[in-house]
Amino acid sequence: MEYTKITETILNELRAIVGADNVMTDADQMQLYAHDEVTDPAYHHLPEAVVFAENAEQVAAVVRLANEYVFPVVPRGAGTGLACGAVPIYGGVVLSLEKMDKILEINEDAMYAVVEPGVRTSALQEAVEAKGIFYAGDPCSGDSCFIGGNIATNAGGNRAVKYGTTRHQVYAVEVVNPTGKIVNLGARLQKQTTGYCLDQLVIGSEGTLGIITKATLKLVPKPQYSMDLLAVYEEAEDAIGTVNKIIKGGIVPTCVEYMDNITIKSVEKYLGTRLQGSDKGNYLIVEVEGTSEDDLDEKAVALDEICTENGASDVLVAEHDKIWEARKAFAEAVRAESLIVSKEDVVIPVDQEPLLLDEILRLAKKYNLVTRIASHAGDGNIHLNILKQPEEDYAEWEKRVEANQQELYTFIYAHGGRLSGEHGIGFKRKHLMAEFTNPDELDMMRAIKKALDPKNILNPGKIFDVEE
Amino acid sequence: MEYTKITETILNELRAIVGADNVMTDADQMQLYAHDEVTDPAYHHLPEAVVFAENAEQVAAVVRLANEYVFPVVPRGAGTGLACGAVPIYGGVVLSLEKMDKILEINEDAMYAVVEPGVRTSALQEAVEAKGIFYAGDPCSGDSCFIGGNIATNAGGNRAVKYGTTRHQVYAVEVVNPTGKIVNLGARLQKQTTGYCLDQLVIGSEGTLGIITKATLKLVPKPQYSMDLLAVYEEAEDAIGTVNKIIKGGIVPTCVEYMDNITIKSVEKYLGTRLQGSDKGNYLIVEVEGTSEDDLDEKAVALDEICTENGASDVLVAEHDKIWEARKAFAEAVRAESLIVSKEDVVIPVDQEPLLLDEILRLAKKYNLVTRIASHAGDGNIHLNILKQPEEDYAEWEKRVEANQQELYTFIYAHGGRLSGEHGIGFKRKHLMAEFTNPDELDMMRAIKKALDPKNILNPGKIFDVEE
Repeated sequence: MEYTKITETILNELRAIVGADNVMTDADQMQLYAHDEVTDPAYHHLPEAVVFAENAEQVAAVVRLANEYVFPVVPRGAGTGLACGAVPIYGGVVLSLEKMDKILEINEDAMYAVVEPGVRTSALQEAVEAKGIFYAGDPCSGDSCFIGGNIATNAGGNRAVKYGTTRHQVYAVEVVNPTGKIVNLGARLQKQTTGYCLDQLVIGSEGTLGIITKATLKLVPKPQYSMDLLAVYEEAEDAIGTVNKIIKGGIVPTCVEYMDNITIKSVEKYLGTRLQGSDKGNYLIVEVEGTSEDDLDEKAVALDEICTENGASDVLVAEHDKIWEARKAFAEAVRAESLIVSKEDVVIPVDQEPLLLDEILRLAKKYNLVTRIASHAGDGNIHLNILKQPEEDYAEWEKRVEANQQELYTFIYAHGGRLSGEHGIGFKRKHLMAEFTNPDELDMMRAIKKALDPKNILNPGKIFDVEE
Repeated sequence: MEYTKITETILNELRAIVGADNVMTDADQMQLYAHDEVTDPAYHHLPEAVVFAENAEQVAAVVRLANEYVFPVVPRGAGTGLACGAVPIYGGVVLSLEKMDKILEINEDAMYAVVEPGVRTSALQEAVEAKGIFYAGDPCSGDSCFIGGNIATNAGGNRAVKYGTTRHQVYAVEVVNPTGKIVNLGARLQKQTTGYCLDQLVIGSEGTLGIITKATLKLVPKPQYSMDLLAVYEEAEDAIGTVNKIIKGGIVPTCVEYMDNITIKSVEKYLGTRLQGSDKGNYLIVEVEGTSEDDLDEKAVALDEICTENGASDVLVAEHDKIWEARKAFAEAVRAESLIVSKEDVVIPVDQEPLLLDEILRLAKKYNLVTRIASHAGDGNIHLNILKQPEEDYAEWEKRVEANQQELYTFIYAHGGRLSGEHGIGFKRKHLMAEFTNPDELDMMRAIKKALDPKNILNPGKIFDVEE
C-alpha cells in the first residue's frame, strides 16, 4: 500500500475542514488512538493525525481530501473493539466520531430513534427506556461502546437470541462512502425490495465500506415481565446440551448464557462473593420475557422441566442484578488472573455446541492450556479465553496457542461455524480470515471493496488485504 | 449491450452441459418463458434458448460458457413474478431452475431445511408442518412460487409483520456467481461477523448477482395457538389508523391486513358469498399467535380494545379459512373486473399509512381512476390496483395512471417509503428506480454489479442499467 504522508499542507486542509481544535498531532495525546482494547503493543500503531468530526459534511470532506491526496482514513468510535478494527495500521488519519454524540430523535409513536454514531449504547438504552420503550441491542460493553461501532462491527451481546444482533436493530444508516459521498442506505420499513440491500452490506463491514454518520434504529415495546433462571449442572456437557432443547422448545428466551465451573470460581474470587452451586456447578443463565405474570410462570415451568430433564441438579429463579454482575464480570475476572490472554470469539450452530465444547476441552488438554469459558450459548458464540500462566514462556505459550487455534478453527469450519460471532475480524484475525474463508467468497469481498473504494482509503488492511 | 447471439455452436455446448433434452429452442414452447405474470405483451420477450439445469455444476458451467461467449443468462423460478424480473429482455438463455425441486433435508432437531431453488413454497411449508415445525415465509402466491424466486426477490407476504420477509428466513445460500463460481454465502448461525454480509446482498438482487442453487432456511417451532380477528370500520381512515396502534401495543401480530369497502364488495361478487359487514365496512384482519389458549385470549381482549377505541364498529373472531379465502381472492377478483390493471406495490412506514391512504384517494379522484386496495397494512405495503374501465381509451388511461404514479411516488419517497415492498423492481420499475433513487446510492449498486459481473451476464437490464 502506497500512501501519502500527512504533510503540513494536508494538516492545514484538515484544519480548514474541522477547525484547528479538532486536529490532534501530538504523539503523546495520540497514544490513546493507537489501539483498541487489545493490550498487546504489537497490535498498536500511532496515527499521523487524529481528526474529530462534528457532522457528516466534515466526515465527507475529510474522505474526499483523503481520496485527493491518497491517505488512509480509519474511523473510530469508543475504541472498545477487540480485533484492532480501529487501529491505523498504515498510519494516516484516525477519524474520531466521539463528538457526534447526539440522540437526534426518539419517536415513541412510530418506535424508532435517530442517533449520531458517537452515542454511548447505554445512553440510548436509558433514554429510550425512560420513555417506556426499548432498544434491544445490548453488547456486553454497552456502558462504554458507541452505536456507530456497534453497527460497524455488527455487535452482538446477550439478547441476540431473541432480538438478533445490531444489524437487526437498524432501519437505515447515513454513511459517508469511500469516495466521500453522503448516502442514506436502508429505510424505516419492515419490508422492501427496491434494489440491492446496501445497508446490510455496510453494516458489519468494519468501516471499510462506509463511515456511519447517523443511524435510524428500531425500538420495540418494553418487555413488561422478565425473569432470570439459573440452572446448575454438575456435568458441563449436560448444561451445553440443554441449549438446543430450549431453543427448540418454542419458548424464545432473551438470553441463554453458559459459564463453566472454573470460570464461575474465577468470577467468585474476583467479586469476592459466593455464587450458588459454585463448588461443582456449571451455569446456564436463561432470561425470558413474558406478556403477563401468568405467561412468565408458564414459561418458567416449561424451562424448569427442560433443564431438569437434561441433567440440571438445580433450577432457581436468580436475582437479576447478581447473576448478571457475575456474568459480566467474566472479562475482568480473567484479566485479574492473567494480563496475557488469547481471546476467542468463535461461533457454531447451536446444535453443534456440545461437540465444540468437547473439542475445546480436548485441545486444552492436548496443548496444556489454561482456559476460561463463557458463552452466549443461545446463539452458539463461545468466548474461549486462554490464559498465559506466569511460569510459562511467552513465545512457547504462543506457539501452543496457535497450534490449538489451528485445530479449533478447522473444527469450527468443518461444523458450519465462523471465526467471529461478534468481535469482528479487524486486523487481528485477518490472516485467519484469509486461511479459512473460501477464496471465491473472499474474491467477491475484494471486488466489492475495490469497486467502492478504488484508492483503498477507508480503513485499509482490515478484514482482508485488497491484493492477495 | 452487445451480446453474442446463441449460435448452433453455443447450443451444442449447452447440450453437452445439461443434455439435449434440457435445451429448448422451439419458439412455441418457449412462449411460456417469454413472460412472468405481467400480462401486457409489451413486457414479453422471447429467449433464444431455454436451458433446464439439474444441479449447481450445470448452472455454473452455463454461466462460465456465457462469460466465454458473452450472452445473457436469465435465471427463472416458477415465473410468478410481477415485475418482469425473469423476462430475457436482451434475449440469450433463460435458465430454468424448475427441475431442481428437491427438499434435501429437514432437520427437526436443529430446525433448518436445505432445499433446491425449484421447491414450491407450499410444498416446503407442508413438508415441514407434517413434522410439527414451521417455515414462516409465506408469499400470497405460495401455492405456485418457488423458494429460489422468493429469495431472489426477497418475497414478502402476510406473515412478514411477525416473521419478516424471505431474507429473514435464510441462513445461507449456495449461489453460482456471475463468473460461474459456486460459492456458499452466509451460515447456519444466529449471529456472526466474519467479513461482508454477502448473503444479504445477493438475496433480493433479483438474479443479477447470483443464481441460487441451494438454500438453508430457518425453521421455527409451529405456533400452537392462533386466532384471526376481523375488525370492521365504517371509516377507512379509522381502520388504517389503528394499525400503528396495534404494532405499538406490544402484541406482535402475525399479520395485519387491510381491505377497503369497494374491494370487499369486489371479492364478494367474485366468490359469490356474503362477507360480514360488507355493506359499509372496511376490514382489518389481524392474525395473532399465542403460547396457550389463555395467552391468546388475553391478546384478543387487548386487540379488541385497541380496535374498538379506534373506531371499529365490530370486532369478531373470524373463520380462518373464510376470511383468508376472501383476502387471497383479491388479485383474482380484480382480474375478473378488468383484465387491464396497473398494480402498485408501494411501501411506507406504518405510521405514515393513513396519510398515504388519503393521498391515494385524493389522486384517484383527481385523475378519475377506479381503484381497488388491499394492503399488508402491518408492514406498510399497499397493493393499489388501478383498473381500466371498458369505456376508457387505453392510451389516455395510461397517461392518467402515469401522472397518478408520478405524484404517488413523490409522496411515498417524501415520507420515507420505497417503490416496492415485495414484488421487486425487475424490468418493469427500472425507470422509476432510476428516477426516485439517490444517484450516489444507485452508483454504488452499479459499481458492485460491474465488479462482480464485469461482462454483465446475469439478468442484464434489471433493477438498473449498468451504464447510465
